Amino acid sequence: MSIAEDILGGDRLALARLLTQVENDTPVGRAALNDLFPHTGQAHLIGITGSPGTGKSSLVNHLARTLRQQYPDRRVAIVAVDPSSPFTGGALLCDRVRMRDLAGDSGVFIRSMAARGALGGLAHSTASAVQVLDAAGFEVILIETVGAGQSEVDIARLAHTTIVVEAPGLGDDIQAIKAGILEIADILVVNKADRAGAENTERALRAMLELAHPGHKGSDEQAWMPRVLRTVASQGEGIEALVSVIFEHADYLKRSAGWQKRERERIHNNLVNLLQSTLVARWQQQMPPERYDNILQRLYRREISPYQAVDYLINLED
Amino acid sequence: MSIAEDILGGDRLALARLLTQVENDTPVGRAALNDLFPHTGQAHLIGITGSPGTGKSSLVNHLARTLRQQYPDRRVAIVAVDPSSPFTGGALLCDRVRMRDLAGDSGVFIRSMAARGALGGLAHSTASAVQVLDAAGFEVILIETVGAGQSEVDIARLAHTTIVVEAPGLGDDIQAIKAGILEIADILVVNKADRAGAENTERALRAMLELAHPGHKGSDEQAWMPRVLRTVASQGEGIEALVSVIFEHADYLKRSAGWQKRERERIHNNLVNLLQSTLVARWQQQMPPERYDNILQRLYRREISPYQAVDYLINLED
Repeated sequence: MSIAEDILGGDRLALARLLTQVENDTPVGRAALNDLFPHTGQAHLIGITGSPGTGKSSLVNHLARTLRQQYPDRRVAIVAVDPSSPFTGGALLCDRVRMRDLAGDSGVFIRSMAARGALGGLAHSTASAVQVLDAAGFEVILIETVGAGQSEVDIARLAHTTIVVEAPGLGDDIQAIKAGILEIADILVVNKADRAGAENTERALRAMLELAHPGHKGSDEQAWMPRVLRTVASQGEGIEALVSVIFEHADYLKRSAGWQKRERERIHNNLVNLLQSTLVARWQQQMPPERYDNILQRLYRREISPYQAVDYLINLED
Repeated sequence: MSIAEDILGGDRLALARLLTQVENDTPVGRAALNDLFPHTGQAHLIGITGSPGTGKSSLVNHLARTLRQQYPDRRVAIVAVDPSSPFTGGALLCDRVRMRDLAGDSGVFIRSMAARGALGGLAHSTASAVQVLDAAGFEVILIETVGAGQSEVDIARLAHTTIVVEAPGLGDDIQAIKAGILEIADILVVNKADRAGAENTERALRAMLELAHPGHKGSDEQAWMPRVLRTVASQGEGIEALVSVIFEHADYLKRSAGWQKRERERIHNNLVNLLQSTLVARWQQQMPPERYDNILQRLYRREISPYQAVDYLINLED
């Protein structure tokens, strides 16, 4: 039986092994992805993002548990992406905490991904891992990233529904960040809402939403006005309301053709990413190393500029 | 007179204009960078990074002011990189606050960069902006990023000296992040050190440093043990001590050949980044759009996988 057949048949050990192959971008991983790709497109992909200190991981754990309780027939996968750990195995620690919270539920599968090496590598390997889990039959896939910045944008490109998590009292310059994040959020969660300042945080978010989506009060059937919800994930408060809004957003997307639009954008971004890395790999194969080194040395001595170096390298002249 | 000559002659208006050309990657910008590149390599590049809420921007402002007071003959440039604002002009707001703090000092030049579009784009345009400022004769260039994650790693690749800013009370899961960040930090700053918990934050950082650099107490002349400093940037406290340690680190790098090593890594990374985008652009030029669309449609229908699509696109077969 092929790996793909094992995955489609629900073999969890084969799934874990294939995810490692996929993360390492091996030929075995690529071949299995080719076989599995026709079986993708069924899962609801939910991205969860926010700054450190907002309690994202706890929220994701409670969300998974509540989803499982309310819909026992739907399986949930968690992909925890940690772009800030390029060097160390920080993601593993996070895994162990997770395991404790969700242990014993065979309808939940948890996977951590750490950034490795090149730019774009993490976005690509996360997209591939999500494809495997989608084909494996997980109806809901929660994709969590730590950190603020480009990673949020990449998540928004990967998910049907993007949840941005905030918390009270994370300082003033967080305001500068929100402007960009608000434009990718479908749902905004003020977590740790039992802390002082939760009302201010919620008010600030609503004010910024109003600025970002002017004249749009949620009464319009055509467009989705991002929702603001309060949760206390550590106590499990507000999670059921969050689940309702998540499914409301999925219904909205399916009704408005937004679902297919996001699917296509995601597939297209994945293709562009893969195309870039393949073009570079092919170019490297035909480049004589000594020629590359020679041009690099001239660049180090500042005899040529980076643009001139690229010209020499690609046109094979000097 | 060419743009490069204007820049080398100290024309600030020409400098501001060229930075816009460079950010938009225009032919004029590229030509000027070719002319300016031989004049680069003089500046001390200092990266400052940390999570939202740590007071980074205030720290950078005070650092610039203190540097100018202590060394009036050295000019300081600030490049504020905001990877979280891909859509909106958040960086501009930050600029105006800056202008107020440092207005009137012609030895300070401030520039904000916002992420635009593709992955790697910001790293590339920031590297180019830094080259222009280096050639323009700024002895110290402070490169500040908002956010946690890949952006920190990119900064570490761009700077001689990397400063990671923390603050007390930013939550628990920040610990998970620190493991990765610690490996890029040359100097760790606990800002807002007048707040409750500053001692705990400092102790935690020192404990993690000890883990990351075991048996290494700073007595060894050969290696740099990252320093931990406390500041209250809003009051200007601790900034002079920070300036001393920054120059100590520069001396260490020059003594140990680390300076040249970091220069070369930075130049090499810049080359690889530029090579990737150039290869993709060349490929796009020779690709018939209707062929691309055809393969994309087959991918959308899941008749082929992303890897198969890339094969078809690059090998020009179906």
